[in-house]
Amino acid sequence: MSWTLGHSETLDAKPDVFVPATVPGAVQVDWARAERWPDVNQGDNFKAYGWMESCYWHYRTRIPEGLPDHAKGLYFVCRGVDYACTVRLNGQTLLEHEGMFAPFEINLEGLARPGDVLEVIVHPAPKAQPAQTTKPQVSYGWDFHPRLVPLGIWDETGLEVRPETRLRSAELGYALSDDFSSADLQLNVEAAGPVANSILWEMLDPSGKVVLSRLGDGSQAARLEHPLLWWPNGEGDQPLYTSRVALLAPDGSRAQVLDQRVGLRRIRLVMGAGAWERERENPVTQAPFPITFEVNGREIFAHGANWVPPGIFPGTVDASTYRPLLDLVAGAHLNLLRCWGGGFVNKDSFFELCAERGIMVWQEFPLACNFYEGTPAYLAVLDRESRAIILRLRRQTALAVWCGGNELFNSWSRMTAQSLPIRLLDRNCLDLDPGRPFLPTSPVFNIRHGDYRFRVNGDKDDVFSLYPKCQATAYMEFGVPGPSPVSVLKSVIPESELFPPRRGTAWETHKGFGAWDGDRNSWLMLNQVDHYFGPSSTLEQLVSRGQLLQAVGLKAIYEEARRQKPRCSAAACWCFNEPWPNAANNSVVAFPAVPKPAYRAVADANRPTLGSARVLRFEWAPGEDFAAELWLLNDSPGATPACEIDALLLVGGKAVPLGAWSVPAGLPNLNQQGPKVGVTLPAATGETFDLLLRVRGHPEWDSTYTFAWKRT
Amino acid sequence: MSWTLGHSETLDAKPDVFVPATVPGAVQVDWARAERWPDVNQGDNFKAYGWMESCYWHYRTRIPEGLPDHAKGLYFVCRGVDYACTVRLNGQTLLEHEGMFAPFEINLEGLARPGDVLEVIVHPAPKAQPAQTTKPQVSYGWDFHPRLVPLGIWDETGLEVRPETRLRSAELGYALSDDFSSADLQLNVEAAGPVANSILWEMLDPSGKVVLSRLGDGSQAARLEHPLLWWPNGEGDQPLYTSRVALLAPDGSRAQVLDQRVGLRRIRLVMGAGAWERERENPVTQAPFPITFEVNGREIFAHGANWVPPGIFPGTVDASTYRPLLDLVAGAHLNLLRCWGGGFVNKDSFFELCAERGIMVWQEFPLACNFYEGTPAYLAVLDRESRAIILRLRRQTALAVWCGGNELFNSWSRMTAQSLPIRLLDRNCLDLDPGRPFLPTSPVFNIRHGDYRFRVNGDKDDVFSLYPKCQATAYMEFGVPGPSPVSVLKSVIPESELFPPRRGTAWETHKGFGAWDGDRNSWLMLNQVDHYFGPSSTLEQLVSRGQLLQAVGLKAIYEEARRQKPRCSAAACWCFNEPWPNAANNSVVAFPAVPKPAYRAVADANRPTLGSARVLRFEWAPGEDFAAELWLLNDSPGATPACEIDALLLVGGKAVPLGAWSVPAGLPNLNQQGPKVGVTLPAATGETFDLLLRVRGHPEWDSTYTFAWKRT
Repeated sequence: MSWTLGHSETLDAKPDVFVPATVPGAVQVDWARAERWPDVNQGDNFKAYGWMESCYWHYRTRIPEGLPDHAKGLYFVCRGVDYACTVRLNGQTLLEHEGMFAPFEINLEGLARPGDVLEVIVHPAPKAQPAQTTKPQVSYGWDFHPRLVPLGIWDETGLEVRPETRLRSAELGYALSDDFSSADLQLNVEAAGPVANSILWEMLDPSGKVVLSRLGDGSQAARLEHPLLWWPNGEGDQPLYTSRVALLAPDGSRAQVLDQRVGLRRIRLVMGAGAWERERENPVTQAPFPITFEVNGREIFAHGANWVPPGIFPGTVDASTYRPLLDLVAGAHLNLLRCWGGGFVNKDSFFELCAERGIMVWQEFPLACNFYEGTPAYLAVLDRESRAIILRLRRQTALAVWCGGNELFNSWSRMTAQSLPIRLLDRNCLDLDPGRPFLPTSPVFNIRHGDYRFRVNGDKDDVFSLYPKCQATAYMEFGVPGPSPVSVLKSVIPESELFPPRRGTAWETHKGFGAWDGDRNSWLMLNQVDHYFGPSSTLEQLVSRGQLLQAVGLKAIYEEARRQKPRCSAAACWCFNEPWPNAANNSVVAFPAVPKPAYRAVADANRPTLGSARVLRFEWAPGEDFAAELWLLNDSPGATPACEIDALLLVGGKAVPLGAWSVPAGLPNLNQQGPKVGVTLPAATGETFDLLLRVRGHPEWDSTYTFAWKRT
Repeated sequence: MSWTLGHSETLDAKPDVFVPATVPGAVQVDWARAERWPDVNQGDNFKAYGWMESCYWHYRTRIPEGLPDHAKGLYFVCRGVDYACTVRLNGQTLLEHEGMFAPFEINLEGLARPGDVLEVIVHPAPKAQPAQTTKPQVSYGWDFHPRLVPLGIWDETGLEVRPETRLRSAELGYALSDDFSSADLQLNVEAAGPVANSILWEMLDPSGKVVLSRLGDGSQAARLEHPLLWWPNGEGDQPLYTSRVALLAPDGSRAQVLDQRVGLRRIRLVMGAGAWERERENPVTQAPFPITFEVNGREIFAHGANWVPPGIFPGTVDASTYRPLLDLVAGAHLNLLRCWGGGFVNKDSFFELCAERGIMVWQEFPLACNFYEGTPAYLAVLDRESRAIILRLRRQTALAVWCGGNELFNSWSRMTAQSLPIRLLDRNCLDLDPGRPFLPTSPVFNIRHGDYRFRVNGDKDDVFSLYPKCQATAYMEFGVPGPSPVSVLKSVIPESELFPPRRGTAWETHKGFGAWDGDRNSWLMLNQVDHYFGPSSTLEQLVSRGQLLQAVGLKAIYEEARRQKPRCSAAACWCFNEPWPNAANNSVVAFPAVPKPAYRAVADANRPTLGSARVLRFEWAPGEDFAAELWLLNDSPGATPACEIDALLLVGGKAVPLGAWSVPAGLPNLNQQGPKVGVTLPAATGETFDLLLRVRGHPEWDSTYTFAWKRT
């Protein structure tokens, strides 16, 4: 089925020119390809796309030859149009639709004949304000995303000829027994036509062995004894069963097969150890929201990161986009991605790849940083869209938590617990997916977001001093910006603008300057780099210094959050990835999947077990008393043996002993706090010095921290 | 229709004895009346009722003569059975029902014949634990309520012969325009039989004049221009319209009439002035819950009190119980009652009387201080019961806010925002009554509950020092206990036990001692009374001293909450009334409707406008520097003129000037903070001294505060 694409100023006007279209995809990509535009990611090229969001875009195809008589069983099936459209057959309107997440289908039986023209006319993008759509807000411009508003058919779409007798859907639900020794399976099948005694249900274990086989009329229940449990990354394996539902033809052959892969697990949000006993201030208020992930009865620390769209155009994102990024997520010992409400809701392949890697998904609905008023029109769209999202994703093993959206209960959004859109989302999740936790937004009491810089609070704090003073139950967003690798910079910034970085160049377009309201230096943070190291003389030196701050900062925050366990039970850096190559950004991986040095630091800080040091600032002067509180962090399900940790400074290549700690044997999933060790700092050598923790017999638990000498 | 009542050990056993029953009522009341038991409120008499909660109680009546042929149109209609029952006709089970708030009806057409025996067999009360019912928790014993668990038919119940053509229901909904200049009315009618063009809808204005008259088939819409608005007590009038729906017979006569009284108003919970600008701690968490009542676009201070069951037996409570209490509520300048989730949901007459008096109702569902697990059985009952409550009450003008229940997100309950019962309640309110605010529980962030004593925090604080340190958005429960009036005490405590009060007597049964876990002196608080005044030598002296502390304490807290406006926008004392005569209790009104001195203090503190003083402790020694910060509190919709406030102490009848304040003219609904005035205290005379604020020209704004001389 081939499509062409043209644009017009009004719904009914005819486009002058048609170009080949890729479905799924985006009108911008098709048009730019046809006109041989240069890479949208380079320089200021994206600005050329601005006019496109205001057009009507006509996707056109023809009904093919070879249909059954009267187009019997013919359907046009669309899984996603971004954002609103009119569908026409030979100029007759068949459907009007709004919302990119709700699929639709049109029965064409008796309507369509070979050669007929089928058109999907995509409407201009909704205006950014007031925010009254489910269009992802990020496209309208964000501190890491240019303003470029995609449009088009973004998910699988085409014609289907459906037999009269068929499976419409098959969905497996289950409940694990309290001791996890069995799973009560519930298969729900919807079918059309006479299917009595012709629906075969098989459960295949992770090795592919059939462990259950039932012939019946459709929906049925069964019990699976001693199921293999699915665990998050670092907590155990990720066995995936397959629920296979086959429609048998009269000859016994499999006329249709629907597979669902499923990892059996129970995920709850609970209060966590000691949470009820804290904060009994008189008079009392409510306890904080429960935010400890309990998986299969085990309370775990959520090693998280924030996930943003991995590309500007949702229609061009697929498993090949997700896979290298999710390999990096798993490789960094992370077990949770918060899919931020400013972006689009990912495709199924994202969740399937997460399930294979033990990555839990915190999925937000597409609301972010705005006051979404509960107008009837918006509530109707949100209702339809959210139901579609829930019905599509509730079968996904990786999906752990629903969340209403990003930062809605804050002064820059001004929604509250009374806002009808939030109550509607809670209701739809309860109605369609009652077993999954729902959070109205993030942050909720006492989750915290921020900061996004190395030095904060008017330079009174740095990342080392700020977080030990906080008492969050979860740090669901924190960031430290860093420049992209030099190779990435060279690919997007014209050579003439590369060094020194200046405002008004591609450095600014790509968010090196002025990206974050109120911080004109973001995200390159020249002022902070200069503060610690003085002016840089080459691009490589500047990048290296900026990247060092990002790596050091993120390691410091992750480990501090872990030291605050069990009060704190989750940490997620802002952000893991990015949708295009920024010159500098909080992401630890540059577009498309290029790790910055911070990636290694994040991976280090999230090792299940490691030696860790609490040091209360980054910048030190010779002669000052340096102090480090020693810890053995353990978020693994394994006990730790007794061991010895040596702490030493490395100053100009010379080791300065700080002290040692004999760590007793430790329980699974339990941190141990050790002594504070210290030394008077010797004379400075170079720009930085290192603190090393050496865990005897367990070099894989060693840690290194870098600190700056105060400039004189 | 007359009923008799007997009890048995099993559902199917026949009672030996039947006694006359009152419907609606309670089995305990009927049985005690038949056996001529003494007053349940006296001494330990209630203990005799203990066995009754474990019986099956058989209500029995006979189908009367004179029915239509085949009992055509005959229904058995029950508005409430406490708590579960089996309904039988001639021994055949027609219905099993659980839940006291969901009404039920049984179509008896073709089933019942004159003389048939109709039985409602009430099951034994559910056990207190685990809390998995909608039975009000207060009955199982509370710090102001004996353990006495009512059972029986508690709301209107009987046979109805219904014509084929009839109105089933008529309900008026409305939406006020943004400028309140018009109301869009929506009448929803359900009818049976042919009603075309025979349903007359009239709107009567508060004077009874017909302002709208429409003949039609049922549901319809209309607009009312320039409606008179309903206002809370102190904010304006309470005009009540009547929506009258009449079914016209062929001869034009009114065969059936359904009236609904309605006050037109819009009530929201909003963030209040300055709320978004406060608490921007970095990293940020969510903003507090919105808890400022906005009525018809005006943000007001909610002058509240907590309402508990006004009797032990819901079935004996009616308008005559409510009226004197609600007159007292209105007389104390209160505009909000929090109907606490530990009690039963009041009858319609409660809400109607509140609407007439400008009292807004915060209605909690019957959950309190327990972990209600979301078992399928409990969720089914809660779903049915909550829907019934919402459908019954959503038409009530006075109903302002729904709330999930009492103190559910605290360590003694351990429910969380993830608890399915809470999510279900939110969903049902959204589905059936989307225009009304919903709170999951009280307290939520940053509402506060407590304390309930004059001296708190291990005697480090008293009510004067504690609350100025708090930063709540609302104080939805705070209490100071006081003894009941001597006349009440004499009516319930045997004369031999009256003085001195001792544990193990009716003083303890009636909550003078050991009522509150962890405070063995509650609620008489002998230790605190003795601390300030030394041992009392007569009952009258003790009562007077205890009542003084209650009055002083409640006045201090209400005024401090008001001084914290706009951060704080609601205050509600625990509690207004009580279900039986306690010897001492936090209530400001003793059973059934006897004001304690604290009632006058509450009324004083809640005057719309008054002079007020912030003094930071209750106990003073001669020679100390006494200080008072002067305020003019104004929660009224009227501006205040410039005025002069004189502050003076009254010590042993002698006036000691403190200072004066020239108060500028003030805006409506705005407090003014004045200077701090002070004086070195003279020698002590008597046990107490007074602080007087005299507002020249406005004696109705004068205030008096009493303080204690430190005992030497």
